[in-house]
Amino acid sequence: MMKEFYDLADFSVEQVEALISLATRLQHQPEPQALAGKVLSLLFLSPSLRTLASFQAAMVRLGGGSFVISPEMSIHGIESRAGIVMDGAAAEHISEAVPVIASYGDAMGIRAFAEGRSLDNDLADFEYNKLRQLVTTPLINMESAIGHPCQSLADWKTLDEIGVPKQDGRFVLSWAYHPRALPLAVPAATLQMAAMRGMDVTVLRPEGFELPPSIMDRAAQAAAASGGSVRETDDRGEALAGAHVIYAKSWSSTRHYGDKIADGDLRREFDDWCVDDPWFETTAEDCRFMHCLPVRRGVVVSDRVLDGPRSVVIQEAQNRMYAQMAVLHAMLGNGGL
Amino acid sequence: MMKEFYDLADFSVEQVEALISLATRLQHQPEPQALAGKVLSLLFLSPSLRTLASFQAAMVRLGGGSFVISPEMSIHGIESRAGIVMDGAAAEHISEAVPVIASYGDAMGIRAFAEGRSLDNDLADFEYNKLRQLVTTPLINMESAIGHPCQSLADWKTLDEIGVPKQDGRFVLSWAYHPRALPLAVPAATLQMAAMRGMDVTVLRPEGFELPPSIMDRAAQAAAASGGSVRETDDRGEALAGAHVIYAKSWSSTRHYGDKIADGDLRREFDDWCVDDPWFETTAEDCRFMHCLPVRRGVVVSDRVLDGPRSVVIQEAQNRMYAQMAVLHAMLGNGGL
Amino acid sequence: MMKEFYDLADFSVEQVEALISLATRLQHQPEPQALAGKVLSLLFLSPSLRTLASFQAAMVRLGGGSFVISPEMSIHGIESRAGIVMDGAAAEHISEAVPVIASYGDAMGIRAFAEGRSLDNDLADFEYNKLRQLVTTPLINMESAIGHPCQSLADWKTLDEIGVPKQDGRFVLSWAYHPRALPLAVPAATLQMAAMRGMDVTVLRPEGFELPPSIMDRAAQAAAASGGSVRETDDRGEALAGAHVIYAKSWSSTRHYGDKIADGDLRREFDDWCVDDPWFETTAEDCRFMHCLPVRRGVVVSDRVLDGPRSVVIQEAQNRMYAQMAVLHAMLGNGGL
Repeated sequence: MMKEFYDLADFSVEQVEALISLATRLQHQPEPQALAGKVLSLLFLSPSLRTLASFQAAMVRLGGGSFVISPEMSIHGIESRAGIVMDGAAAEHISEAVPVIASYGDAMGIRAFAEGRSLDNDLADFEYNKLRQLVTTPLINMESAIGHPCQSLADWKTLDEIGVPKQDGRFVLSWAYHPRALPLAVPAATLQMAAMRGMDVTVLRPEGFELPPSIMDRAAQAAAASGGSVRETDDRGEALAGAHVIYAKSWSSTRHYGDKIADGDLRREFDDWCVDDPWFETTAEDCRFMHCLPVRRGVVVSDRVLDGPRSVVIQEAQNRMYAQMAVLHAMLGNGGL
Repeated sequence: MMKEFYDLADFSVEQVEALISLATRLQHQPEPQALAGKVLSLLFLSPSLRTLASFQAAMVRLGGGSFVISPEMSIHGIESRAGIVMDGAAAEHISEAVPVIASYGDAMGIRAFAEGRSLDNDLADFEYNKLRQLVTTPLINMESAIGHPCQSLADWKTLDEIGVPKQDGRFVLSWAYHPRALPLAVPAATLQMAAMRGMDVTVLRPEGFELPPSIMDRAAQAAAASGGSVRETDDRGEALAGAHVIYAKSWSSTRHYGDKIADGDLRREFDDWCVDDPWFETTAEDCRFMHCLPVRRGVVVSDRVLDGPRSVVIQEAQNRMYAQMAVLHAMLGNGGL
Repeated sequence: MMKEFYDLADFSVEQVEALISLATRLQHQPEPQALAGKVLSLLFLSPSLRTLASFQAAMVRLGGGSFVISPEMSIHGIESRAGIVMDGAAAEHISEAVPVIASYGDAMGIRAFAEGRSLDNDLADFEYNKLRQLVTTPLINMESAIGHPCQSLADWKTLDEIGVPKQDGRFVLSWAYHPRALPLAVPAATLQMAAMRGMDVTVLRPEGFELPPSIMDRAAQAAAASGGSVRETDDRGEALAGAHVIYAKSWSSTRHYGDKIADGDLRREFDDWCVDDPWFETTAEDCRFMHCLPVRRGVVVSDRVLDGPRSVVIQEAQNRMYAQMAVLHAMLGNGGL
């Protein structure tokens, strides 16, 4: 039985492919009694739409159920600092709240976004790990500071479905403009997924938005093991030539991480990084557009690309549910993985 | 299988009666496995109490489940305008959010109230239809600008239960005072329901609150087909004589639609339109009081009428769940309608 | 079948023990079909974390489901005063809302905290009883002004599990400091539970925080019937000598009930009532620490006690789910109690 689904890098390529097979099987052959009487506790410390909906739906489809806890539900306010005298607004500490919530479920999902202040803290997934050590049930990372494995599993399944080759598949993870400094979770997870899948992966981003060396190194090792490659460039022409996929996502400047003013000044120089038709001039003819959603139209990607035949963003989001059903089945079902 | 439950007028009288038979059967003979593993996605763009609760309960009673999305759950903010550059607060567009949410369910319910600005837009159910075209699963109208078919189905079932005759049943849909300009959805739906049921229907309202001609004409045709009749009057005495039912509801002035000041000035002249004992002086002796809830006590109806034996408002609300179970069963069950 | 779970005092010791046996059986032998198709309606008029999560989880584990209504969900605003003309903000009255919500479920849970203004009103559970009379389905008190029977049932089960003796068990219910004036529900319920269980119960509290005579008298009668005893003191040394359990909880000054300023002035004198290691110097060696949660660290109890081996607060909270499963099973299952 799977005990934790924290990061795709914790699994072998064979294990990931087994999960995707299971996801596809559950998509086509429902098992409405598989998790009868089983409970998933869902703890959202950051907002959610797709994840909130798809995990609840996944449990119902497998015959179980779930409950949702989000901070705005509790008047108490929840304290997370250690050793504090709680004479202020917060009436409850995570040391009590999290183990209790976890204990009501057979498995738990946690979403805790990056704080966006210290790159080291966020790369170490400081907030998520503070919660993780309070939980003894099987645990699913529903997006942390540096990981989003459910999205990656769904994206891998989508890549299989649209026929992007593993060997010699050209996958471009491109930074895009966005008015706010966003976390590194999706780019880091997507890079690792694409590398594990054996594709030739290019990270296309302006100077100042390099992915952290630890993230790049880890992906390079995964690529080497799978027969793929990883590189990083700010040269759009070089990056896009022959691409099978443009996966767009905005993220924070790593040069100015935690400094919103400097990040903003730098990113505004690149507000023309909006994926549009000209980006596809030298790609493979059937090059697809991917994004994890939510996406800002006219900012990250043009309407015509997003509404056109290249876009598979809805399919990616739909696959979230099937991917998560597979994870839940592997954690709580009779068959294991 | 039913693909859409948008408006009672889309169904024949026989189909409506079959749905009511199914509702009554499910009320008395539970089928706790009928929709095992099935998911209903519930999208509320307007607030709800009865609908929120009764749809969730309905799915559990049939062995399935549901999830709820309402705008306040998403930090992102959801944009609905076409062709916009999303560089403001909204981080997500309905073009992505709605198909994704829909895809997690086997059927979807949408609530989207009238904007209350343009009568033409609201009669055309502009907002609902914008969402509807984004959904490919079976879809249920949980109240739109101009329709509320779940309420109508529940009301029809209630009329059957309390023995209001179809032929020669005298049904009065009466405007009532309310401090705010409310949508036309319930009066339009109720009129159509009563006409389809074959009753003699009188719309009682002050001048300036006439129902739109398109609504009246549609109801008149349904009445003709069912052996009933439809008329409109501001003469309370004429309207109420011999009535079997007074169905109260407030709605906007159609003369001043979208003009809150002019509407307010006009409606305040009729703040004595509160259904009370004297309204029943010339009705049938056992004339009943109906309302879709929520209802303002002492404003729309007196306490003594609402708390007295004429009132069937709780029964109407209870029938919401059974009516919706029938719709869900007809959409997602093995038997179809 | 159980029709109401309002107060532990409504049940015999044998009935309580049967519920605990059932809770333990369901903990170890799941019955994921026991309540198939059954619905629990959950009405929270006060905020909740453990209760919200554990009731939803309990229903899923028994094969049914639930829905949650809390006031912030309804735009309408809900009026509870009788005989009022509703021309203000509230668009709905509890006389309609509560029976309807209740009717969608096979059983209902209601949480309605103390108003904290009139001790007589709160002792009479005024708000809860106003709602109770509107409900005809089986009803569970999820914490009212003066009762919290689900917590008490979970605590009794916990006491059994940790081996606190019934006869000659020394149970100390101790007031603790907290910056706010909190309700009497948990102390009243805990005292009654401990007395019914046959233990020797000491209420330790400063002058001005005496529990109301009616609460003390009722407990004394229960203790007499079970072979235990009840006393009240402000002498910590006397209270703690030989104790098997220190159950900490803060509550309002009963001398200044409803007077927040006078209550605050008095309670601040006792801000050193924080359970810490020295409290256990004369207790039984393996004396345990209990609390219903949420608890303020460094205020009500020290970190070292709460994080140490004496604390069973997580176990108490976990037992909430099993206790509630037993209540639901006794209300809605085939076997009854």
